[in-house]
Amino acid sequence: MSAARPPEGPQVNGKASLVAVDWGTSSLRGALLDAQGQVIEERPFPRGIMTVAPGEFPAVFETCFGDWLARSSGLCLVSGMAGSRQGWMEAPYCACPAGFGEVAAQLAWITAPPPGWRIAVVPGLSCEHASAPGLQGMPGVPDVMRGEEVQIFGAMRLANLNDGIFVLPGTHSKWARVQGGRITGFKTFMTGEVYALLSQHSILSKTIAADAPFDEAAFAQGLDHAQGDAGLLHHAFSARTLALFGRMEAGPLASYLSGLVIGEELRANAVSDLAADTDAALVLIGSANLTRRYAQALAQQGAQSRALGSEATWAGLMALAQVIKD
Amino acid sequence: MSAARPPEGPQVNGKASLVAVDWGTSSLRGALLDAQGQVIEERPFPRGIMTVAPGEFPAVFETCFGDWLARSSGLCLVSGMAGSRQGWMEAPYCACPAGFGEVAAQLAWITAPPPGWRIAVVPGLSCEHASAPGLQGMPGVPDVMRGEEVQIFGAMRLANLNDGIFVLPGTHSKWARVQGGRITGFKTFMTGEVYALLSQHSILSKTIAADAPFDEAAFAQGLDHAQGDAGLLHHAFSARTLALFGRMEAGPLASYLSGLVIGEELRANAVSDLAADTDAALVLIGSANLTRRYAQALAQQGAQSRALGSEATWAGLMALAQVIKD
Repeated sequence: MSAARPPEGPQVNGKASLVAVDWGTSSLRGALLDAQGQVIEERPFPRGIMTVAPGEFPAVFETCFGDWLARSSGLCLVSGMAGSRQGWMEAPYCACPAGFGEVAAQLAWITAPPPGWRIAVVPGLSCEHASAPGLQGMPGVPDVMRGEEVQIFGAMRLANLNDGIFVLPGTHSKWARVQGGRITGFKTFMTGEVYALLSQHSILSKTIAADAPFDEAAFAQGLDHAQGDAGLLHHAFSARTLALFGRMEAGPLASYLSGLVIGEELRANAVSDLAADTDAALVLIGSANLTRRYAQALAQQGAQSRALGSEATWAGLMALAQVIKD
Repeated sequence: MSAARPPEGPQVNGKASLVAVDWGTSSLRGALLDAQGQVIEERPFPRGIMTVAPGEFPAVFETCFGDWLARSSGLCLVSGMAGSRQGWMEAPYCACPAGFGEVAAQLAWITAPPPGWRIAVVPGLSCEHASAPGLQGMPGVPDVMRGEEVQIFGAMRLANLNDGIFVLPGTHSKWARVQGGRITGFKTFMTGEVYALLSQHSILSKTIAADAPFDEAAFAQGLDHAQGDAGLLHHAFSARTLALFGRMEAGPLASYLSGLVIGEELRANAVSDLAADTDAALVLIGSANLTRRYAQALAQQGAQSRALGSEATWAGLMALAQVIKD
C-alpha cells in the first residue's frame, strides 16, 4: 500500500474515532465517526467491488478515505463484499452462533498499512441448515451473509435488544435470530432477485409496468393471495391471468407481484422455526421503500415491527470498534 | 382464405379421417389420422404463432397441410395458442368443469374455408381459484390452459380413465383433476420458466453448468431439500452456498436446482386440494425427459404414475372429432 498521505481536511471537533466503510458489490460508502459514534461526514462512491480490479483495492480505498484516516485515530473497519473472495481481502465466514466477540476475533487485518493506520475487514457469517428429513447424502446446507451481520449488530445497539428477529429485505433477504446478544442462525431468501426476474424477464413482464408507483391495495392483495397453499410457482401465474382477464391494470400488477413474492417470504417464515417465537421483537433493517412494504406485510399478519435504516451499519461498525478497544 | 388446392399426395389406405394440428407459441406440428386415429403421417414446422404475421395464418396453414385436407375428409382440428388473441382465430376459454361435449360445443370454426374443408380451433380452458382467506376485494383468481386440455382428453382415452390427476410438466406446468370424464379444475405452476430464469439469469448462473447431463442423485437431493418448510425463495439459495463451500460441482448443481424447483411444485400440490385424493390415478403427459424427472420425483414421495407423450395430442383431437360426428 502506498504511503501517500492526503493533506489535512476541514477541522473537526476533536479527533475522529473510526472510519466506517460499507464496501458492497455495487456500491462503496463510508462514514467518519466521532468517539460517540456520531457521523461527522458521509461519502458514497460508485466503486462497488465489481468495479475494482484485483490489486487496486488499496489505491481506491486511499483515494476515497485516505484523508479521513490521516485525521482520525487511524482505525478503519470495512464490512460487506470487500471481505469476499473477489474483494480486497478474504475474511473467512464466522460460524454461528456469533456475537461481537466472535466476529471481532476473526477480523481480517490488512497487512502492511501506512504507519498509524489499522484497517480490518469484517468477516461474514455462516450457519448450517439441517437437511430435510430423508435428505440423501447431504450432511446439511450452508447459508451465508456478508455485511448484514454488522447491520444486525448496529440494530441491536440502536434498539437496545439482545434478543429478537432481525429482517433485512433486499436482493437476498435475510431473516436472523438473535439470542443473548449473538446471532444464532439465519435464512436467506432470494426475494428481490426473483421479483426482478419475474417482473422483467418472465412472461409476466409483458403485462406488468415494473416502474409503476407503489399501489398499496394491490400489494395487499398479493400478500393475501400468497398465503394460499400452492406456493409461489403457482401464485405468480395469477399476475398473468389477472391481466389476461382484464381484472388488474399493468401499474397495480407490479405491486401485486411484489406482494406475492414478499408474501411468500413471510409465509415461509411463518411456518419455519425462525418465527416460531411469536413474542420475539421484530426489527426491519433496510431502505425506507422496502421496510415500509415489509412492515405493511407483517402488520397484515398481525405482527408489529420497527424499522431502521443505513445508520445501523455505522452503529454496528462502531460497536465492533469498541469491542476491539476494550 | 385462398382456394388454391395442392395436387393429390401419395396414396393412403382409404380416406384419411382427420387432420390434427398442434399450433403452439414456438412450434407447429400436424398429423394425418385414419378413421381409427392411427397416424398416417406427421409433420413438424418451425412456424409457431410468434413467427406468423396477423392475416398470414390461412396461407401458412395451407402451405403446411393443404395437401392433407385435399385427400382427407376435409375436417381439421387445431389446438394450442392458435386459438389465443395473438393466434389465427380467438377461441374464448371454455369454463371448467369441461368435458368433450363442452369443448366441442365451443369450437371456433374458421369462416369461409375452401369448399369441402372444415377447420376448427379448439378453445382453451379456464377455471377460478377461490381467494385466500381474507383476500381483499378479489372475487377469485382465474387460471388458464390452451392445448393441454386436448392432451388430457387424449390421455383419458389412451389410458381409459374418466377420473384422475393429469400432470403436464413444462414451462408452465399444469395439474388437472378429471372427474366423471370432465376436467373439473387445474392449477398452473411456472416451474420450467422459473428454472430457466434461475439457472441462466440469476446469481446461481455463475456456478451452475445449465447444459450438464442429468444427474439423478443430485436431482434427488434437490427434491428432498425442497420438502422443507422454508419455500423456494430460500431453498434456491442453497444452490449458491453448496457451490461456495465446494460441496457440489457445477454439473450436478443444474440437476440439484431442477430437483428444488420440481420438488417445490410437488410440495405445493401435496398440501393443496388437487392431490388430496391419494387414490387417484396419476398420469404424466409430456416429453420423455420431463416425465422421467416427474416420475422419479413422485416415486420418491411414494406415488406411482404412468407417462404418455405427444401421441396424447392426436388422440385428444381424434376424440373431439368423433364427438362432432356423433
